[in-house]
Amino acid sequence: MIKVVKIGGNVLDDEAALKRFCRDFAALEGRKVLVHGGGALASKMQEKLGQEPVKIQGRRVTDPETLQTVTMVYSGWCNKQLVSLLQKEGCNAIGLSGCDGNVITASRRPPLEMDGKAVDFGAVGDVRKESVNAPFLEALLSQGLVPVLSPINHDGAGNLLNTNADTVAASVAAALGGELWTCFEKDGVLSDINNPKSVIPQLTEASFIGLKENGAIADGMLPKLENAFRALRQGAKKAVILNAACLLEGKGTVISL
Amino acid sequence: MIKVVKIGGNVLDDEAALKRFCRDFAALEGRKVLVHGGGALASKMQEKLGQEPVKIQGRRVTDPETLQTVTMVYSGWCNKQLVSLLQKEGCNAIGLSGCDGNVITASRRPPLEMDGKAVDFGAVGDVRKESVNAPFLEALLSQGLVPVLSPINHDGAGNLLNTNADTVAASVAAALGGELWTCFEKDGVLSDINNPKSVIPQLTEASFIGLKENGAIADGMLPKLENAFRALRQGAKKAVILNAACLLEGKGTVISL
Repeated sequence: MIKVVKIGGNVLDDEAALKRFCRDFAALEGRKVLVHGGGALASKMQEKLGQEPVKIQGRRVTDPETLQTVTMVYSGWCNKQLVSLLQKEGCNAIGLSGCDGNVITASRRPPLEMDGKAVDFGAVGDVRKESVNAPFLEALLSQGLVPVLSPINHDGAGNLLNTNADTVAASVAAALGGELWTCFEKDGVLSDINNPKSVIPQLTEASFIGLKENGAIADGMLPKLENAFRALRQGAKKAVILNAACLLEGKGTVISL
Repeated sequence: MIKVVKIGGNVLDDEAALKRFCRDFAALEGRKVLVHGGGALASKMQEKLGQEPVKIQGRRVTDPETLQTVTMVYSGWCNKQLVSLLQKEGCNAIGLSGCDGNVITASRRPPLEMDGKAVDFGAVGDVRKESVNAPFLEALLSQGLVPVLSPINHDGAGNLLNTNADTVAASVAAALGGELWTCFEKDGVLSDINNPKSVIPQLTEASFIGLKENGAIADGMLPKLENAFRALRQGAKKAVILNAACLLEGKGTVISL
């Protein structure tokens, strides 16, 4: 079974955590794919460049300058740092953006009607299961390579698009019929956001709806869970949400339909 | 015969020239590899970030901040722009830095004794024919993929290194026993630097030494020619220096030993 592991900014932005994660990921048995974000680093780089990060509903509005910055940060710095550290650990990683080998094609998000106004997100793309070139990923995996995917994808018409790393990971896990392992900084989905020990060991879609309605699950956890349920509905065999520091134990919240 | 084409900043820094080059490169017949630089864009980005570019004998001194910038610019922006434009033209390009699939390993340059002082270039690496993972490149080519190589390579111990794109191209051409096509902004090697029509059609090493001694060939042309002769001595079958805008005609200066 192929494991699709997703990491975010909390790992990428902390050198010690990054090195530890790379050691653990290299030691993870079987065929695997890594998907990374890098939003916190991108925001810092935007500030250094005098660009003002603009987010609407958690998604970065991506004008041409912002596209250049996020492509540099995600596909350049984050991706190559990860790959070189994984190579050091003996893991034959290969960093890919969507354009590389045409591995993921995204469609540019049309302007959305919000509060009566059309909001244009710019060079932001949406990725689905069908966006993923699964035969190409499988060919790389069968050569012993470990794909490391940046969330910069392309439309096939010469344009790069900024996409959401959680959605990329869910789409890849669904397309490969693999397992989705979403890593973050907590030990799993918490029933009480103020108690880090309140990890829910197993979460079904029915119980998720209840916890969402009573407000126990909110904010950044919602898209992670929605992506996990979507991946399972579309062919992923398992979904886990766990602490990046607990990758080898594999303990966290197991999501099921 | 595999063609290894090298392009520099004059193509990457001009949107119209870049699009034209990508159309031409996509139309070039046979197996091929593209190697790119991006120094001019890296210097601009360094200035935007308040970093002062320092060069000694044409080589950028690469402290940790500079390494981050050149990795972002070369492996992120330049590489992914090229790959997405090539994909648009139907060329199944795959962008690689040295760490990706361990395609090129560089060795960190030791401090050099210059004018009685030890000069440390920082994260600068040297690449040779033996640095190139030729079986991996050949495996990609035999799958119909077109490698697009950024001059950011790695030492295999988790460190990225800034290397010279001309040297990377020469080493790859030698390792693959292919042809080295070095593109730049002139129509070939000129016998009179002030006369753009004075293209030397064929240049041997013996005549190069004469032209170097009388000062007709100087500055940035010297490393390009030295790399071309080295590639030929180490196994490349042909070397041409030509205008990026004349790629399909293939006209320029043919270099021979």
